[in-house]
Amino acid sequence: MVSAVVFLADGSEEMELTIIVDVLRRAGIQVDVMGVQLDKDYAECSRGVKLMPDVLLEKQQGNWSAAYDAAIIPGGLKGSRTLGANSKVQQVLSSFYSQNKLVGFICAGTVVAKAAAIGQGRRATSYPAFKDELSTYYDYSDDRVVVDGNFVTSRSPGTTFLFALTLVSKLVGQEISSRLQKEMLTTAKL
Amino acid sequence: MVSAVVFLADGSEEMELTIIVDVLRRAGIQVDVMGVQLDKDYAECSRGVKLMPDVLLEKQQGNWSAAYDAAIIPGGLKGSRTLGANSKVQQVLSSFYSQNKLVGFICAGTVVAKAAAIGQGRRATSYPAFKDELSTYYDYSDDRVVVDGNFVTSRSPGTTFLFALTLVSKLVGQEISSRLQKEMLTTAKL
Repeated sequence: MVSAVVFLADGSEEMELTIIVDVLRRAGIQVDVMGVQLDKDYAECSRGVKLMPDVLLEKQQGNWSAAYDAAIIPGGLKGSRTLGANSKVQQVLSSFYSQNKLVGFICAGTVVAKAAAIGQGRRATSYPAFKDELSTYYDYSDDRVVVDGNFVTSRSPGTTFLFALTLVSKLVGQEISSRLQKEMLTTAKL
Repeated sequence: MVSAVVFLADGSEEMELTIIVDVLRRAGIQVDVMGVQLDKDYAECSRGVKLMPDVLLEKQQGNWSAAYDAAIIPGGLKGSRTLGANSKVQQVLSSFYSQNKLVGFICAGTVVAKAAAIGQGRRATSYPAFKDELSTYYDYSDDRVVVDGNFVTSRSPGTTFLFALTLVSKLVGQEISSRLQKEMLTTAKL
């Protein structure tokens, strides 16, 4: 079974996290929401939605990340700063990237990719406010979703369906992605 | 301050709930996520996302619903069946509807409107699978969002941004809705 880990911190963007997790699970992908540095049972997201993680990064042991085929980082400024400064998150992203596993970043999430020092020079996008911070490191694009090999980036809550459907297409194929697009009645087009 | 209550049960659709709550809060609307008949601290949503409510219906006392300007029901088949069968939810919806407060239903959520016996004969939509169940009671439409006075309905995860922006426009004005549409980079157009 194809599996993915989606990281969650206080201040992560709840729409982005939830759309990614839900759409990937609709595609039959096994997804774990992994909490990072939470001080309660749940994450208090960017607009106050309270999300419970499935697992906690701090409880993982051994070569735990080998179980996953993809790692995904949602936006939300505060959440992204926490994830980007966490050395274990950086290590997982760096390891996945170099193993050619799928890594995905959306909105402020692309800041975490740079913090983990991955993808230098590759095509990437982010929430527009981070363009200056990122355009010296990446071949910056204003496209809604940018796929450069195993490095997939996107922009905002409003591009998250397209981002999630793109991840689905990469992980389990275009046919399932197209089916979900119709099932959810989204106008997002791959 | 304008305020809204969004009901949440086990099996509610997590993307729909989260997009509605997040977008309304971005608009400056005070939103409470109100859990209904939960047997844990959180709701286990339709695709396994775990959402914590802000308040619980069972703990509300007196004329609590007077504090809210709008009541909104997300989709998710199992969640909608629970909400539709709950007599307190039915009473709140019926009371809001007759007071001309805004009531909103999306996806399987429109089934809850019918269960509360509100809006008979008015224009409405839902997830397409519920068309037969609803078209004898409503003037059924296949539009992505249908506004008939204070009765607003929509279809699916993929129409939720448009639904939420429509609610924002009705509650706090078109200008804020347009600003959010740009801020979130959504292609949903009012």
